[in-house]
Amino acid sequence: MSTANGNTKHDRSPSAVYSEVQSSRLQVSLPLPSVLKSSFSVVDGPKSSAAGNPDQIGKLFPNLFGQPSVSLKAGGSLPDKSLKIGVVLSGGQAPGGHNVITGIFDYLQTRTHGSTMYGFRGGPAGIMKCKYVKLTGEFVYHYRNQGGFDMICSGRDKIETPEQFKAAQETVKKLDLDGLVVIGGDDSNTNACLLAENFRANNMKTRVIGCPKTIDGDLKCKEVPINIFRNDWKFNGRCTIHWKILSLLMGRAASHITLECALQTHPNIAIIGEEVAAQKQTLKSVTDYITNIICKRAEAGYNYGIILIPEGLIDFIPEMQSLIGELNEILAHGPIDKEGAWKKKLRSQSHELFEILPKAIQEQLLLERDPHGNVQVAKIETEKMLIQMVEAKLDNRKKEGKYKRDFKGQPHFFGYEGRCGLPSKFDSNYCYALGFCAAALLHSGKTGLISSVGNLGAPVEDWTVGGTALTSLMDVERRHGKFKPVIKKAMVELEGAPFKRFASMRGDWSLKNRYINPGPVQFAGPSADIINHTLRLELGAKA
Amino acid sequence: MSTANGNTKHDRSPSAVYSEVQSSRLQVSLPLPSVLKSSFSVVDGPKSSAAGNPDQIGKLFPNLFGQPSVSLKAGGSLPDKSLKIGVVLSGGQAPGGHNVITGIFDYLQTRTHGSTMYGFRGGPAGIMKCKYVKLTGEFVYHYRNQGGFDMICSGRDKIETPEQFKAAQETVKKLDLDGLVVIGGDDSNTNACLLAENFRANNMKTRVIGCPKTIDGDLKCKEVPINIFRNDWKFNGRCTIHWKILSLLMGRAASHITLECALQTHPNIAIIGEEVAAQKQTLKSVTDYITNIICKRAEAGYNYGIILIPEGLIDFIPEMQSLIGELNEILAHGPIDKEGAWKKKLRSQSHELFEILPKAIQEQLLLERDPHGNVQVAKIETEKMLIQMVEAKLDNRKKEGKYKRDFKGQPHFFGYEGRCGLPSKFDSNYCYALGFCAAALLHSGKTGLISSVGNLGAPVEDWTVGGTALTSLMDVERRHGKFKPVIKKAMVELEGAPFKRFASMRGDWSLKNRYINPGPVQFAGPSADIINHTLRLELGAKA
Repeated sequence: MSTANGNTKHDRSPSAVYSEVQSSRLQVSLPLPSVLKSSFSVVDGPKSSAAGNPDQIGKLFPNLFGQPSVSLKAGGSLPDKSLKIGVVLSGGQAPGGHNVITGIFDYLQTRTHGSTMYGFRGGPAGIMKCKYVKLTGEFVYHYRNQGGFDMICSGRDKIETPEQFKAAQETVKKLDLDGLVVIGGDDSNTNACLLAENFRANNMKTRVIGCPKTIDGDLKCKEVPINIFRNDWKFNGRCTIHWKILSLLMGRAASHITLECALQTHPNIAIIGEEVAAQKQTLKSVTDYITNIICKRAEAGYNYGIILIPEGLIDFIPEMQSLIGELNEILAHGPIDKEGAWKKKLRSQSHELFEILPKAIQEQLLLERDPHGNVQVAKIETEKMLIQMVEAKLDNRKKEGKYKRDFKGQPHFFGYEGRCGLPSKFDSNYCYALGFCAAALLHSGKTGLISSVGNLGAPVEDWTVGGTALTSLMDVERRHGKFKPVIKKAMVELEGAPFKRFASMRGDWSLKNRYINPGPVQFAGPSADIINHTLRLELGAKA
Repeated sequence: MSTANGNTKHDRSPSAVYSEVQSSRLQVSLPLPSVLKSSFSVVDGPKSSAAGNPDQIGKLFPNLFGQPSVSLKAGGSLPDKSLKIGVVLSGGQAPGGHNVITGIFDYLQTRTHGSTMYGFRGGPAGIMKCKYVKLTGEFVYHYRNQGGFDMICSGRDKIETPEQFKAAQETVKKLDLDGLVVIGGDDSNTNACLLAENFRANNMKTRVIGCPKTIDGDLKCKEVPINIFRNDWKFNGRCTIHWKILSLLMGRAASHITLECALQTHPNIAIIGEEVAAQKQTLKSVTDYITNIICKRAEAGYNYGIILIPEGLIDFIPEMQSLIGELNEILAHGPIDKEGAWKKKLRSQSHELFEILPKAIQEQLLLERDPHGNVQVAKIETEKMLIQMVEAKLDNRKKEGKYKRDFKGQPHFFGYEGRCGLPSKFDSNYCYALGFCAAALLHSGKTGLISSVGNLGAPVEDWTVGGTALTSLMDVERRHGKFKPVIKKAMVELEGAPFKRFASMRGDWSLKNRYINPGPVQFAGPSADIINHTLRLELGAKA
């Protein structure tokens, strides 16, 4: 295997040493939904449309638009033929990715004869550069039920220019692929659909099936109730030294993870970005809310607490968006003067906002640029900014005699912790079924679908299995004067059961200590079959 | 329960909500060593001495010095009487503390009649202020096998002045205590011994027994092979984005945790403080070592890696100690000038060292003072300092063409994560036995002992149980012209099996990817009975 592209080399060999927990996970054989256990057929549903702008989606995907989603039903048979299938991981890692691959592999082994499977290395770049590894039983074995994406590694490249499509075509022709499975998030599945369209338009035999994978839960619809999504993303809520502010990485665009963690751990404060945006909250109102709870708890004798915020909080605050937009504009037209005369170019609301920001954040906004000259919002350490702003407010209240304690905020940033763990039992089963299903869809000659496993609140054997037309999930966005297809990100629904449950409890959680420790993920015993609270509530659970 | 002292209120009531993992742990009944399962007697060993300076220890503990350590043997009987026992948690929290308390409680319930148990709230201050809660079955139930110290909370006060001893005497008299169990680390157990001596000197009936509790493993001896010490302190070693530098909080004075984590996860680099000190390594040699491995890995195609350092690394580097000592001296004699003339007061080696430190660290050394005017070494973020220094070195190598990649270091500081988790199955069993044994020692009228459970590599029923004379663990240190008793901290032994194993493997780990993910702590199934690698190797395991 080459490492010329700078990606991780394969290091799990038969001689590799595992921890006891890892070893025990290797040997677990996974249950399958009943429909996948014996012969099945693929049944088409009705003609599909798009999530929005069907006319534009129709023009962008002339060969695929309108095709039905499908479900798998018991009985019937698929042709007995050998398949050549490629698989690629796209985007950031998430627990369970390896099990999608082993699911595909096991399908080919048990349901076809003489099939071959290739893993493209380092994400979509591996397709374009024809960098791959042949996946054998011995090779795949060492990744069963294991975390990480290191079996074939991932990457963030896109296949979008004519040259890139050409390169992809050459690879799949060279390997004579019947099918390609793309495991990835919303962008990667959009890309998978573009590939499916391109291959079909060119009368190629290679079919493309997507598999949902996102750590932050923003790829979700009726047919894709959950994706490779840590159902057990856990931290410990029992640390009671001063105030801890936890920023949760995996929620740049949506606050699903923050909401799930709040439901699992009952923090004193959790900020849900979608609510902040819907109510057009300001940075001041958010920090006031936090400060008020800190003061009330201090009065009750609790000089500590836990606050959860989504990493992308700033993106949800409309006035911050305005300020950043104006700054980008001003900075594009020349350097700023040290005396601050440039500030006059800000609208008055933005000027006021800028002035209440901590100095370090002001500097960050003015100094750090991305290659396009824009403010690097993602680099702003939101949890530290909030601590400084709350500190300043508490200092004032102290002077007014309204707060008598000392506040010490401790920022924590949780990032790869959530991405790189072992998949839970649920993750393992779900992802294995997704992979098995993706292979079944390719076997039946389908393309442009995303593997969909549903009824997840039931025992595995009762899970439903099928494929959703990717075009049916799409809308268009206008970028640089062109229509671009996008799968809409699933945001936290303020009318949904999970948020409503949170909203009904947060008052109690804020002033009392209702912390719950979800504990470490269990693979055996009574706690191994837990599904996440968001899903449970969406499925109608009462608490 | 009062919260006037600002400590956490009790919040685990029958109505409290638990996570599924927590609930499942509540119901587990724990095994006991055979000797504790039926009647036993306490057998004295030979007269004991001290770890050092027996003459001085003899003078400091005239009533206790020389008393034998004891072991529990099957057969015999203890008097049938009711006991009044107090318990206190002292110092930072560690998983298993609650189980020591439930062990004492269960002993009193099953082996005596009509006994009463009190929990002093908020650490030793609770003894002095007579703040306590009566521990009932219903109250204690909710903490069985749970993490945290919140049942009665802890504190870091010491009982050392005549007034403080007086206050403690009044409390134990008021409650008519037969015994007091102090659960704590080296300092707290020294304090427990001083209390035992004081009570005996004053002909009081209250006996004092210590229980070993430290998160960083520095309270260890032949009879106390391990203490309440997370045998499962785990993190995930599979994140392969750039270089991660992990600083492990619980190792200010000793590097046991860093060594254990290295043995469990096979990082590319782990720095063991005791080795740094023994070899009189300099900051330059440590950063050179790190930089060399980064460059070698880059040549092999690996532009990422994992480095573990103990939080107290700086304390192990002799030249840093000199520099800090000189700075304290200089700063005590007046302010420093901005032009830097003050630097001439440094010895030349210290001056050179100061100049190679990153600017932020220089400022920290000069600006942040503790109340005594000393440099606050504990506040220096060692992991960030190392990143900056390594960055500078790599920049130079890049200019020389010896390093061609981009280095991005990501600091992580693990602190309360290790302290506040649920106790593992081993932790739970071990701590429960410690508590059960402590109560047995008090029942038999012993004082000035530390509860000791041994033979931990064997099944629980074969564990040995006894009490070690606290004075036998002590040496003296001369502070401010006076002899002070101390239990010597157990450091990583460079000739011990755990370090030797690490030293024999680290070359391989540094250049190859041998990462192992220990996975989350399991309470059921095949991985629940794992004991930590350090202990396993000390007990003679081959790998």
